[in-house]
Amino acid sequence: MNIPQSSFPRIVIIGGGFGGIALAKKLANKDVQVVLLDKHNYHNFQPLLYQVSTGGLEPDSIAYPIRKVLQGYPNFYFRLAEVVQIDPKHKIISSSIGDISYDYLVVATGSETNYFGNKNIEENSMAMKTIPQSLNLRSLILENFEQALLTDDLHERDALMNFVIVGGGPTGVELAGALAEIKKGILPKDYPDLDTRRAQINLVQGGDRLLPAMSKIASSKAEKFLEKLGVNVWKDIRVTDYDGKHITTDTDISFEAITLVWAAGVQAVRIEGLDVDELLTRGNRLKVNAYNQVIGHEAIFAIGDVAQMETEAYPEGHPMMAQPAIQQGQNLGQNLVRLLDGKPLRPFTYKDKGSMATVGRNKAVADLKRIKFQGVFAWFVWMFVHLFFLIGFRNRVVVFINWVYNYVRFDREARLIIRPFKKQYQSVKNKVADSIAAD
Amino acid sequence: MNIPQSSFPRIVIIGGGFGGIALAKKLANKDVQVVLLDKHNYHNFQPLLYQVSTGGLEPDSIAYPIRKVLQGYPNFYFRLAEVVQIDPKHKIISSSIGDISYDYLVVATGSETNYFGNKNIEENSMAMKTIPQSLNLRSLILENFEQALLTDDLHERDALMNFVIVGGGPTGVELAGALAEIKKGILPKDYPDLDTRRAQINLVQGGDRLLPAMSKIASSKAEKFLEKLGVNVWKDIRVTDYDGKHITTDTDISFEAITLVWAAGVQAVRIEGLDVDELLTRGNRLKVNAYNQVIGHEAIFAIGDVAQMETEAYPEGHPMMAQPAIQQGQNLGQNLVRLLDGKPLRPFTYKDKGSMATVGRNKAVADLKRIKFQGVFAWFVWMFVHLFFLIGFRNRVVVFINWVYNYVRFDREARLIIRPFKKQYQSVKNKVADSIAAD
Repeated sequence: MNIPQSSFPRIVIIGGGFGGIALAKKLANKDVQVVLLDKHNYHNFQPLLYQVSTGGLEPDSIAYPIRKVLQGYPNFYFRLAEVVQIDPKHKIISSSIGDISYDYLVVATGSETNYFGNKNIEENSMAMKTIPQSLNLRSLILENFEQALLTDDLHERDALMNFVIVGGGPTGVELAGALAEIKKGILPKDYPDLDTRRAQINLVQGGDRLLPAMSKIASSKAEKFLEKLGVNVWKDIRVTDYDGKHITTDTDISFEAITLVWAAGVQAVRIEGLDVDELLTRGNRLKVNAYNQVIGHEAIFAIGDVAQMETEAYPEGHPMMAQPAIQQGQNLGQNLVRLLDGKPLRPFTYKDKGSMATVGRNKAVADLKRIKFQGVFAWFVWMFVHLFFLIGFRNRVVVFINWVYNYVRFDREARLIIRPFKKQYQSVKNKVADSIAAD
Repeated sequence: MNIPQSSFPRIVIIGGGFGGIALAKKLANKDVQVVLLDKHNYHNFQPLLYQVSTGGLEPDSIAYPIRKVLQGYPNFYFRLAEVVQIDPKHKIISSSIGDISYDYLVVATGSETNYFGNKNIEENSMAMKTIPQSLNLRSLILENFEQALLTDDLHERDALMNFVIVGGGPTGVELAGALAEIKKGILPKDYPDLDTRRAQINLVQGGDRLLPAMSKIASSKAEKFLEKLGVNVWKDIRVTDYDGKHITTDTDISFEAITLVWAAGVQAVRIEGLDVDELLTRGNRLKVNAYNQVIGHEAIFAIGDVAQMETEAYPEGHPMMAQPAIQQGQNLGQNLVRLLDGKPLRPFTYKDKGSMATVGRNKAVADLKRIKFQGVFAWFVWMFVHLFFLIGFRNRVVVFINWVYNYVRFDREARLIIRPFKKQYQSVKNKVADSIAAD
């Protein structure tokens, strides 16, 4: 890996997400050698992926080069690599670019879509956890309408214009709201020769309310907002199968849709080598102690989505969101320094800053520590909080400009099929050349 | 194709480039039915593609949805389709979405990279004529440096950091300049553990000067600018072969490079059905008369790169650039209306607004009608001209913001490998899912 041996202990961080980046920043200019590994060369701001899928933001504005985050820190080494296995015994990890030894290892690999073992759904549905996935969804949505123009078969056309989103968490709610606004504000103008009133957005939630992690008032308000926007909200329904067109559920309700977005669950990204049963929870998360130390592994830590710290307040571990990851990264950063200084470690305590979800224009719900509110103000708070946590000044400005433009013009201009998703829209001529340009 | 029959004559435009869009705008609300076909759903601003390849601009800011250009015009129909063949006898074209009849046909298919029949170069080199191609190049450049970090073989490392650009036209000059600035300003910060001084940018020109279409003073000044930036400029050298690493030329000079960007020539995109020998020129362009009417085809017109109008001033046809395409599109739009009104057509006269090329920060060359100038002022003029011709208010603002940021910060932040180009950087796990997301 060509990383020089240093007199400082080597801390290897796997993953440049919220947790990994927060940790890395805390280790800047400390007496440690930091090696950050990620399979992408950028940090990606997942909470805004749904806006990429719906043409509201350009993908590059919510991504930030990891090397730029680490610029100027002499003790930092970034490598573009996919970690395959951990060997705790010899303190070595094996990766796509070879083996690397560590003194301390921090697993911050985050989470991936969880299909709960349903292969059909995994193969035929769309996910929205990465930028390429979000761009694929953007292409598919636009291709569906281009194709709907070509068919005289009304059932086919309706299936092309039917968007079924499974999962009533923030991702599902925000995507459903954005699609509803596109249906209302953009489709009639872009497709005057298509009856886009027939387009449908169906949000399917297994539980008895949307945004189950939030307050009841937030849930019911979000539902009201969505219904106002014309989204069909289905509760207490679990999707059981999908063949690319027919969606079956555990009730007698079924859907015909070319597009199913699966936002019904996530699981921690698992790395081989540590998967001792007592360590892994149902969601593949690693059990950690109050210092994010993986149980039974002195030198291995886990933070963020991949870590399950069971506390009184959170018996199932902290929510798999940005905040716990950031705070755990910061706390671990300080603890690693204390550890090397021989000082006692400080247990992690989660400061819940509350949670928010936006449904659409002037429509958001917010549960803050002391106050819960919904509507226009919540929507503005949501925007400024997201701008604040977005990494990079240029990104903030560009995202802000886009939001202002979209708000004033009721528009989302990135309606571009840059990399066609459906085979029939891929140029035969360039297929060979560009088909390798995947992720 | 589900396009309603109308009492108005149907004008089919193939291609939503500069020419096609300019023509379509002139036909707004006229007594014609306009059908615009393009294999992409967006217009792309080719002059700025090199900034996408070098991370200076986000791809979405130089693309614009064609449907938005046509919004609000009741007589417009856009279809996402690749035209396969023209049948002039029956006035029908066949496309990827079926046949369509026309009363008048306008071929505005533009140009593509010309490899002059060299299959090795075509297979192993990078082109920069489309957004996906430019993004592939962006990925490859970044992947090269990530890989250079991993090898101890100095020859291999040098080959990874050697960028050979073939073709001394605007594209080659602008790309070379941008890469040189990245080498100077960004690489040392991003790759402190790599000796990026060894990175090389070689610009190979077959002729005896760069920018042969511009004035001698522009050529020599551009060359001075490039050499000041550390670009190796090679003249009177023709690249003869490339196997992916070894570049041979018609001299005893050769290069070892993993990246060869082929900007040495373009040819008109050819559509079957019209390719009668006397119609086609060396560059596949269709011979047209002063009204852009394809010789021998009353109802078929060609504009822009694909049209060769031989005049005294331009015996080989007009330059294959945006301006002739835009002006021919506008003139043809007016002529088609006159034609339908039974009025005589007006011959096309090209108003040469001059040409410009930018080499880098504060460095550009401009040949305007009455005045030729180089340096800072030319650079500002270049920027404002390009902002002006960029389609879309939001695009202009976002591009402007990026330029200001890049200028003030000596930075280019879109250093993102969103879709890895090299196989080894493509996630095995997502390969199946994402490899279809090509162009």
